[in-house]
Amino acid sequence: MLDKVILDPHYRSLGNIFDPEDLERLNSIADVIWAKDDPIPEGEIEAVREQVVAIITGRWRYGDVSRFPQLRAILEVGGVFPSPNQLDYKYCFSNCIRVLSCAPAFGPGVAEMALGLAISAARHIVWNDAAFRRGEANWSHTTFGETVTLYDKPAGFIGFGGLARSLKLLLEPFRCPIQVYDPWLTDNYLRSQGVEPVGLETLLETSRFIYVLAVPTTSNRTLLAREKLEKISSDSVFLLMSRAHVVDFDALTELLAAGCFKAGIDVYPEEPLPLKHPIRKLSNVVLSSHRAGAISEAFLNIGRIVTRDMEAIMQGLMPQEMQRAQPEYIRLRG
Amino acid sequence: MLDKVILDPHYRSLGNIFDPEDLERLNSIADVIWAKDDPIPEGEIEAVREQVVAIITGRWRYGDVSRFPQLRAILEVGGVFPSPNQLDYKYCFSNCIRVLSCAPAFGPGVAEMALGLAISAARHIVWNDAAFRRGEANWSHTTFGETVTLYDKPAGFIGFGGLARSLKLLLEPFRCPIQVYDPWLTDNYLRSQGVEPVGLETLLETSRFIYVLAVPTTSNRTLLAREKLEKISSDSVFLLMSRAHVVDFDALTELLAAGCFKAGIDVYPEEPLPLKHPIRKLSNVVLSSHRAGAISEAFLNIGRIVTRDMEAIMQGLMPQEMQRAQPEYIRLRG
Amino acid sequence: MLDKVILDPHYRSLGNIFDPEDLERLNSIADVIWAKDDPIPEGEIEAVREQVVAIITGRWRYGDVSRFPQLRAILEVGGVFPSPNQLDYKYCFSNCIRVLSCAPAFGPGVAEMALGLAISAARHIVWNDAAFRRGEANWSHTTFGETVTLYDKPAGFIGFGGLARSLKLLLEPFRCPIQVYDPWLTDNYLRSQGVEPVGLETLLETSRFIYVLAVPTTSNRTLLAREKLEKISSDSVFLLMSRAHVVDFDALTELLAAGCFKAGIDVYPEEPLPLKHPIRKLSNVVLSSHRAGAISEAFLNIGRIVTRDMEAIMQGLMPQEMQRAQPEYIRLRG
Amino acid sequence: MLDKVILDPHYRSLGNIFDPEDLERLNSIADVIWAKDDPIPEGEIEAVREQVVAIITGRWRYGDVSRFPQLRAILEVGGVFPSPNQLDYKYCFSNCIRVLSCAPAFGPGVAEMALGLAISAARHIVWNDAAFRRGEANWSHTTFGETVTLYDKPAGFIGFGGLARSLKLLLEPFRCPIQVYDPWLTDNYLRSQGVEPVGLETLLETSRFIYVLAVPTTSNRTLLAREKLEKISSDSVFLLMSRAHVVDFDALTELLAAGCFKAGIDVYPEEPLPLKHPIRKLSNVVLSSHRAGAISEAFLNIGRIVTRDMEAIMQGLMPQEMQRAQPEYIRLRG
Repeated sequence: MLDKVILDPHYRSLGNIFDPEDLERLNSIADVIWAKDDPIPEGEIEAVREQVVAIITGRWRYGDVSRFPQLRAILEVGGVFPSPNQLDYKYCFSNCIRVLSCAPAFGPGVAEMALGLAISAARHIVWNDAAFRRGEANWSHTTFGETVTLYDKPAGFIGFGGLARSLKLLLEPFRCPIQVYDPWLTDNYLRSQGVEPVGLETLLETSRFIYVLAVPTTSNRTLLAREKLEKISSDSVFLLMSRAHVVDFDALTELLAAGCFKAGIDVYPEEPLPLKHPIRKLSNVVLSSHRAGAISEAFLNIGRIVTRDMEAIMQGLMPQEMQRAQPEYIRLRG
Repeated sequence: MLDKVILDPHYRSLGNIFDPEDLERLNSIADVIWAKDDPIPEGEIEAVREQVVAIITGRWRYGDVSRFPQLRAILEVGGVFPSPNQLDYKYCFSNCIRVLSCAPAFGPGVAEMALGLAISAARHIVWNDAAFRRGEANWSHTTFGETVTLYDKPAGFIGFGGLARSLKLLLEPFRCPIQVYDPWLTDNYLRSQGVEPVGLETLLETSRFIYVLAVPTTSNRTLLAREKLEKISSDSVFLLMSRAHVVDFDALTELLAAGCFKAGIDVYPEEPLPLKHPIRKLSNVVLSSHRAGAISEAFLNIGRIVTRDMEAIMQGLMPQEMQRAQPEYIRLRG
Repeated sequence: MLDKVILDPHYRSLGNIFDPEDLERLNSIADVIWAKDDPIPEGEIEAVREQVVAIITGRWRYGDVSRFPQLRAILEVGGVFPSPNQLDYKYCFSNCIRVLSCAPAFGPGVAEMALGLAISAARHIVWNDAAFRRGEANWSHTTFGETVTLYDKPAGFIGFGGLARSLKLLLEPFRCPIQVYDPWLTDNYLRSQGVEPVGLETLLETSRFIYVLAVPTTSNRTLLAREKLEKISSDSVFLLMSRAHVVDFDALTELLAAGCFKAGIDVYPEEPLPLKHPIRKLSNVVLSSHRAGAISEAFLNIGRIVTRDMEAIMQGLMPQEMQRAQPEYIRLRG
Repeated sequence: MLDKVILDPHYRSLGNIFDPEDLERLNSIADVIWAKDDPIPEGEIEAVREQVVAIITGRWRYGDVSRFPQLRAILEVGGVFPSPNQLDYKYCFSNCIRVLSCAPAFGPGVAEMALGLAISAARHIVWNDAAFRRGEANWSHTTFGETVTLYDKPAGFIGFGGLARSLKLLLEPFRCPIQVYDPWLTDNYLRSQGVEPVGLETLLETSRFIYVLAVPTTSNRTLLAREKLEKISSDSVFLLMSRAHVVDFDALTELLAAGCFKAGIDVYPEEPLPLKHPIRKLSNVVLSSHRAGAISEAFLNIGRIVTRDMEAIMQGLMPQEMQRAQPEYIRLRG
């Protein structure tokens, strides 16, 4: 008899994250339990828990990990690791249970959007399209003073995880020197990756394109407070990609309203953003309604990397596609 | 005494294309004549023509090349080689006079804009920003069906000159297979450059992103006639970057109005485009008012490559930065 | 008071693996205990064991890991992970103690030697130098029939760990398609790394350059038995880089003596190889006396990556430079 | 009727430089005349000279170019452009006759050999193999003091033509900073190619690997005279790849005999080198009997690029595979 794998993607839906071929492969290597869009009922869990080797889940809500004596892996399909308040990581690490996140499925798509917003702001693509439609576009070749290219301009990354790596690849042909602020990585390591470690203030003061790419943690809430945002120079573009959690959004809005710099924004403290939020009126911002990662190709990536890592796990090999929880980072997340 | 070089950038202006440092270097290696924004008067030309070794010009209007018996190079700063009707290329080739174009100064900036328009269309950046401001943006993560990424999607290049090379670099991290239609290059050569030669119809039918990058010639006027444009599939994005000359613009507008595909357009048959042109109303087009190359950084590139090539020429070395006229291509341009 | 770190490099010597600057940095971040070439005496260990946070060691000989209640990391400087017979990995994994190997310090140097042996054999560099000195070199440009280049020739890697990755980088400009046999990695993962997974026999039959790069394990002893070696085609070069353990060396010698293929060999079942071993007489082999990794630059790399990872560990961050033991691979090693 | 093309490869032989498929393609696009290994007789030339559009030749010996009124291209298959004493380049340039060299066919193979000799010398591959066979190899892992790797070591290129570009590609994964001495190229151009222009003495003093890659010209005979060679530091490797013409070979031999540096040598002032030449005895030199380019794969490359460029020429397109003669360089060659 095949080992049992709980497939319980809720709040995701199965059809969004698995293409039929991946689902078929998954079924061929394990006895897949549930595989429906609704949350799996407790009774179903209880019936199989002693034979379960892996749980594929949209959100961890299965109680003690020790209920699953054969468990080898937890594969989350929401996009972020379960909170340490919900999942007992210590137990997982002690028992060599892999905890895996599907976050890498989103990296390329978010990076593409970050680049698209950066070019749109630097080259006035959005604002000029609107002006064109109003009959106000500027056609004179010699008066595009504020327009800049990305080539050779210093980029600053706040956070250097998987998303940052995807973005770094896209920026390489633009030859942008990249400076990074990431307190979870050593300076030597960052240098070995071809980026320059810097302090947060230096990054904000000297980067022409500032990309916020950090995963939200308890310690980085409002990391970018007003006095930090005030360091950004007037010819810079600020790109808020990962989480609004990291920034004082009211201060950001006020500074943009005052014309202090330009921005591209994909994430907001409240979504949908209230209709009367003043940022909707600003002409130096490109507004995106949390669309960076949420495309069907990225969702189907989730199923693909889950399936591939399940193949590795069932063969006793190390999963390589999803992000593996590491004790040091779980500790840092607090 | 230094050799004389006519610097007559009209219709460009000197300050736009030379930063002071480049101009200073140019003055240090040759006796620079004129160097003003107005066209050089005939009298000035006549006074120096026997000592002139190079002419830097916005447009060729000096009559017979043979008037300049010491001439070694013509460096055009407008962006396209002089027409064979205006300049006697045969005389230039026979006398080893280099004819050089500043077109490479624009390649990177136009390529960036092409990529920016492609991402803007594929990821709905422009259209979503407008919807956001109207309070109509879609925030649901699961219903972005039409949005696609550039990753791995086949790209088609119409024309494979310097601009195409700049764009190819930017697309590399997206891993797009590139197919090319360019009748001036052999299939073997294209393959050696890592692209796949194809016929024009195949290109239009099978590319998801179609980039028009061809230099205008007598033989490619309306190359993309209506029956060609009808080959484009409905999930494709058409990016008109180099010249409207290459396309039947009325047919293009009608097909877009009928929702046959999406587009990003930077060049038009008439500029500024008339206010009542129907393309201004279309919601599946990103409109750019001929802004792809026209940025101050690109203009200053002109002065930089002119200066660098003048240094080579004055040392008797081969100029390497500007595009060199080649007999075969001049012949093909007709 | 600083945390204590045992530095006990025996059988390595301290001066060989640490340059003074790295040693100084190490001393600045921790209270370094011992730091001598002789093995640390039991008494010294006992005196500090309760405060020890890391052990840097040439060979694990400290008994139960649980003697060190504060231990966070074991950093081996010999080049291979301690055997599961000697070190209780289960305890380490359960207690989030990182077990780290310095093997990556050797990858680049071994890869360079593998490439050097491959070119030497393919281009007859060694054999021609000897002939030249005997006055027998062939100077005729048209009769180098057997000489081949590496360009575009299929390469086969047996094992795809760190060494293979270093070698892959060096082969990239030669455009060699790389096929890999590695039972510890899934096919999908190998494809994602740009190499083609194949069975061992296919690899041996179809590769023109066969590189043995596998770490020795209980399961791969004499993996390359006589009947496997007989699959190698006569125009191939066999490069034995990682361990003689993997191959039936007597069969290899006999096949080479019979002229079945060519070889470059760096490792032997007995070292130094007995003087009368018949392989010493063969003219289709390049012989290297276990010199691939053993160069002073590689040894000093050990100290560098140990120091950098100690910096990470002391800051509570994840070590990134040394190889981290993974439960799956320890299990596979048996 | 097809245009006529003289194919007269002497002193090369047809079978060495054309594989049958390329020859067939060539025959399909033009009326190929002669195509034999012996030199074409004058009578054959005279009979066709008025219809000849291209001459593929091992050595130019056809007298005045003007005898061939339809001539569009001369394709040399020996490896160097005809001397300006033999071929009237001025006539060719004035009449837009392309003069093409097959030198690029040899670049990759010579670059591979240069790298192979460099690694062989740096890692003692050749010398250790000889010691191994004498029973004198050193097996101690800790006493390889003089052995170095190529990684990160400064490389110096004397000459930056096609061969240098091929070698640069191979050195890229070794991260060697490359400094170049080439009086035919401007400093700006060299920097744009990712190398650092330096004076010859600086290059010799500061490079750890010195590659002689320059084409022989009247002005670079014995460029590397004794006082120049004396600048080379004792831990350097000198690689003589392109032509012995460039170096004072007696001085080189004496300095090597005195142990001043190490070397790899492929070319000699007299070939075969006299049996009693003292360099044959030296133990710090790797000796190669002019084998860098002379491999069958490189010879067949000649036919391939000739055929491909003939296809371009017959279509009126610019040839792109062979090296095109440029007026500036012909002038510099003198």
